[in-house]
Amino acid sequence: MGRFENGSKYVWVVSLRSMASKTPVGFIGLGNMGSPMATNLLKNGYPVIATDVFPESCKELQDIGAQVVDSPADVADRADRIITMLPSSPNVIEVYTGPNGILKKVKKGTLLIDSSTIDPAVSREMAKAAEKMGAVFMDAPVSGGVGAASLAKLTFMVGGLEEEYEAAQELLTCMGANVVYCGQVGTGQAAKICNNMLLAIGMIGTAETMNLGIRLGLDPKLLTKILNMSSGRCWSSDKYNPVPGVMEGVPSSNNYQGGFGTTLMAKDLGLAQNTATNTKTPIPLGSLAHQIYRVMSSRGYANKDFSSIFQFLREEEGQ
Amino acid sequence: MGRFENGSKYVWVVSLRSMASKTPVGFIGLGNMGSPMATNLLKNGYPVIATDVFPESCKELQDIGAQVVDSPADVADRADRIITMLPSSPNVIEVYTGPNGILKKVKKGTLLIDSSTIDPAVSREMAKAAEKMGAVFMDAPVSGGVGAASLAKLTFMVGGLEEEYEAAQELLTCMGANVVYCGQVGTGQAAKICNNMLLAIGMIGTAETMNLGIRLGLDPKLLTKILNMSSGRCWSSDKYNPVPGVMEGVPSSNNYQGGFGTTLMAKDLGLAQNTATNTKTPIPLGSLAHQIYRVMSSRGYANKDFSSIFQFLREEEGQ
Amino acid sequence: MGRFENGSKYVWVVSLRSMASKTPVGFIGLGNMGSPMATNLLKNGYPVIATDVFPESCKELQDIGAQVVDSPADVADRADRIITMLPSSPNVIEVYTGPNGILKKVKKGTLLIDSSTIDPAVSREMAKAAEKMGAVFMDAPVSGGVGAASLAKLTFMVGGLEEEYEAAQELLTCMGANVVYCGQVGTGQAAKICNNMLLAIGMIGTAETMNLGIRLGLDPKLLTKILNMSSGRCWSSDKYNPVPGVMEGVPSSNNYQGGFGTTLMAKDLGLAQNTATNTKTPIPLGSLAHQIYRVMSSRGYANKDFSSIFQFLREEEGQ
Amino acid sequence: MGRFENGSKYVWVVSLRSMASKTPVGFIGLGNMGSPMATNLLKNGYPVIATDVFPESCKELQDIGAQVVDSPADVADRADRIITMLPSSPNVIEVYTGPNGILKKVKKGTLLIDSSTIDPAVSREMAKAAEKMGAVFMDAPVSGGVGAASLAKLTFMVGGLEEEYEAAQELLTCMGANVVYCGQVGTGQAAKICNNMLLAIGMIGTAETMNLGIRLGLDPKLLTKILNMSSGRCWSSDKYNPVPGVMEGVPSSNNYQGGFGTTLMAKDLGLAQNTATNTKTPIPLGSLAHQIYRVMSSRGYANKDFSSIFQFLREEEGQ
Repeated sequence: MGRFENGSKYVWVVSLRSMASKTPVGFIGLGNMGSPMATNLLKNGYPVIATDVFPESCKELQDIGAQVVDSPADVADRADRIITMLPSSPNVIEVYTGPNGILKKVKKGTLLIDSSTIDPAVSREMAKAAEKMGAVFMDAPVSGGVGAASLAKLTFMVGGLEEEYEAAQELLTCMGANVVYCGQVGTGQAAKICNNMLLAIGMIGTAETMNLGIRLGLDPKLLTKILNMSSGRCWSSDKYNPVPGVMEGVPSSNNYQGGFGTTLMAKDLGLAQNTATNTKTPIPLGSLAHQIYRVMSSRGYANKDFSSIFQFLREEEGQ
Repeated sequence: MGRFENGSKYVWVVSLRSMASKTPVGFIGLGNMGSPMATNLLKNGYPVIATDVFPESCKELQDIGAQVVDSPADVADRADRIITMLPSSPNVIEVYTGPNGILKKVKKGTLLIDSSTIDPAVSREMAKAAEKMGAVFMDAPVSGGVGAASLAKLTFMVGGLEEEYEAAQELLTCMGANVVYCGQVGTGQAAKICNNMLLAIGMIGTAETMNLGIRLGLDPKLLTKILNMSSGRCWSSDKYNPVPGVMEGVPSSNNYQGGFGTTLMAKDLGLAQNTATNTKTPIPLGSLAHQIYRVMSSRGYANKDFSSIFQFLREEEGQ
Repeated sequence: MGRFENGSKYVWVVSLRSMASKTPVGFIGLGNMGSPMATNLLKNGYPVIATDVFPESCKELQDIGAQVVDSPADVADRADRIITMLPSSPNVIEVYTGPNGILKKVKKGTLLIDSSTIDPAVSREMAKAAEKMGAVFMDAPVSGGVGAASLAKLTFMVGGLEEEYEAAQELLTCMGANVVYCGQVGTGQAAKICNNMLLAIGMIGTAETMNLGIRLGLDPKLLTKILNMSSGRCWSSDKYNPVPGVMEGVPSSNNYQGGFGTTLMAKDLGLAQNTATNTKTPIPLGSLAHQIYRVMSSRGYANKDFSSIFQFLREEEGQ
Repeated sequence: MGRFENGSKYVWVVSLRSMASKTPVGFIGLGNMGSPMATNLLKNGYPVIATDVFPESCKELQDIGAQVVDSPADVADRADRIITMLPSSPNVIEVYTGPNGILKKVKKGTLLIDSSTIDPAVSREMAKAAEKMGAVFMDAPVSGGVGAASLAKLTFMVGGLEEEYEAAQELLTCMGANVVYCGQVGTGQAAKICNNMLLAIGMIGTAETMNLGIRLGLDPKLLTKILNMSSGRCWSSDKYNPVPGVMEGVPSSNNYQGGFGTTLMAKDLGLAQNTATNTKTPIPLGSLAHQIYRVMSSRGYANKDFSSIFQFLREEEGQ
């Protein structure tokens, strides 16, 4: 219990007290993100029924009160509100429609919330499959990383039936600071993918621009100031500058450690590319950004923050 | 004089009064931008000695008090502070070093300020040529369009000797709201080019993102709101959104009329490309942005605002 | 029968004679490509059992002797060798695994040959599904268009079990001039997709190069000659030149009519992009080629030959 | 003289005999390419007057009979046919128009042939400057490397006045196997630049395609065979395949040693980009190819053959 000592003990005690009155919530997928999210549900007094394909991932959560079961189907048997947080589309398909999947034992009226970042077309498929069983599926991917998950500061972008949104919101506000309703099922994913595509474009653009400016004799802090008071301004220039030494507390000033890894960005851009291809939507810069993060992922930058594109581009040509 | 009636008469009168005590300023290049800039110098009480390759461009300025002469050399003969505002590098080379150019008659100690947007390498060449004649050259390109020029709200990015900056600033503040010292000669151009390259990348990225989001079922206003509270935020999403109907008072809501034309953006991206090529700096997204505006310029978008990239990309494929 | 009068009557009579000794072949998908392919099977003496989602497509084939049935399942009920020729992945999935699909009534040992151009991952899925029913699935996409299909001059790229290749070859040689065994199931698709991606890159590259050369003062025929004797040589420069007037008998000299349409190329590049994304393979030029054909498809070039990229790029910028 | 022992002694003797009847040829720029080219002029019986900015470069040529002088002006003083072979545009400008440049002492009617690869606009400037002095300038860049230079197997692409072509051809055929007349001055450069741009695009395209095919399970030799019998065929697939082991005697089978270095390709693509930018010609794939070789040049591939793009792209992503 030592881990909740710093100020959060009070909340913890309160939530334990109120637990009796709340019905259990299922949670499937206890990775880096899922674990702190499920913990926050527990802290808010919700009994949690959890499972993960790697049983050892459930240990910590079990220690603080979660009930661990063997499979998604078992979760569905015991809870009528279930949250899933999984790495990618195939995992989601397996967890929902696989032989021991949620839909094998889901009860009519169950609310299913998928916070994984996946192809919106898969979200729509899962929604249809759930509907056939009388259940309701919503997509609710997050922005914000492990830190935001621990502090319940995530942003949720939610797609699904508007009349079910309130029920979803009740749970999501325990884990996040912002919950935005985006429209029909799949639009939560769409919003997430769109934001991250523009983020990647802005980051690479900022890195190119800063590198060019430095080579042309500009001081990087001065150039940053000029961009930020002008039309070049973007989140990557004013909140997450990729040039070491320009800002404090961002990955570029910590050797590109921490933050949002290049392979994760490449994955999200792959989703953007797939949805764009499948809807015949041209995304020339998004496509090229995808290719660039793809190349970086295989050339030693896989685990560095995605702002390391500055480092990737800046090397001077040798003689 | 009727044109200054609305509220600005007072300033005008004041400036006339103080005119006697100010030495003349030369102004070369009286196009859409140069004319209102020179007018603002007159309003601030500076006698103006002007010329333009098209004599008819000088008419209006003459009517409000400027002295018009035949050539850049003649301007240099009569003024020891000269501002040039020209379309592109070859014009600048001609005006400074041509047979009737400034440097033919420039006096020692003359301050030459070039507000054209050109290749920084040309700025450095001009500075060297000026130095040989005992004159001082500074580059001071602007951001802000015709409207900002009329209202003296331009931003100037200034490169050149730091000890001459104050003298330049005295004149530039009559024509602009922000004057930023960027470093050695050429860095004003560098800052301008860098900003516009990132602007172009951010605009195309925003257009791709909005178009993809709309095809995936998101409402454009909602998507804009989400991007602007998240890491996708940029000037093109929050101040100059390219989707008609999302914002008031921007070119996208006026059929992409006004604003900053696609060919002008293509020109600035060409400068960015040239400086990047010549310094062996990789700019993958900047390069592709250049190509995109190049193609648009020849496919009917030449005179539309550069945010019309949204329109260019959005068309649905026919059956 | 008049349609076979010109010289091919003899073949036709011969094939009718040998028909008795051959077992029927199923054919599903009688579009522009499927119809002439099935016709060639008939000409070679194979009884054909056919179906199409649009019954009227079967008319012609019925007139020359094919037996038409209602559904893929019905075909599977009557034939133990079946060829499918369908527009895209979802159609293939439906025809094989749908409610009236082949696999509903397929007999053990049936040979299933899919000549559609689709995602190799779907081919592998279909192969697995077929295997469960005791049938064998091979992918055998074609290169060559409607003309080559009519003349039995197609090239087939075949993936699947090597021990089944001979059986497939027997049928495919009736419809094509080249049959190439590529390896395990899906590799036929892979070869097709790879070839077309490189084709698209070479075509756009040739168009850019020819356009640049012409603007620099080179005669297009001379430039073509130089490229073709040098390292710039490629199929698009020496067999299918995109510049009108350089070669006879290619779409560029016929206002880009006929040939291989821009949307079809965009579709194949979409497949390349999807397989590359899913295997995390960087394809920077392939990606950009995809985006370019995507944009062209929605800007009036959908039905022009893909060499019309020259026309798309060549326009001069207006004043 | 030992260096000509192997079979070439006879030619050498013959050429010495005929030397008396030939007027001297100037040669400026004795680098890796220039030295063997000048040697071949000597072998063909032309007295050579040479100079180089690095005097030590002239040693070898002096030993076999060339007269070495101090400057381009001195060459112009002694020869009325001069060949220049220099690294880049600024060198050419210096050698022709610098303080000790050719044009300082050029005689009326002198034939100036520049075999450097430079911006065609610079060629045109040099031609104008030469014309003012009554001399004739032609551009004649080469394709083929050091080996071809030694063996007199270069290809020359020649731009300039048609009536002077014959005179140029006389000299160029001593150094090359193919001499192609391209048109007005600058078109030799244009042809060279165009060919190399398409070459780069084809090479990167081939590398992407081979890499994708291999990941999809295709054998690289088989895929090469399929491409080469189909529309994907290009010089990089059938003569210079970038995949190690597919072909003998190409750089890819020798760890990408020898051949045409990545930085040289980046330089030529930079020229293509500059001419395209300055003529407002869109080259989307050419631009991206330039960026890719730019990045490779600064990431350890500078001195590898340009086919090493295959190696650059192929790395698998780590975990």
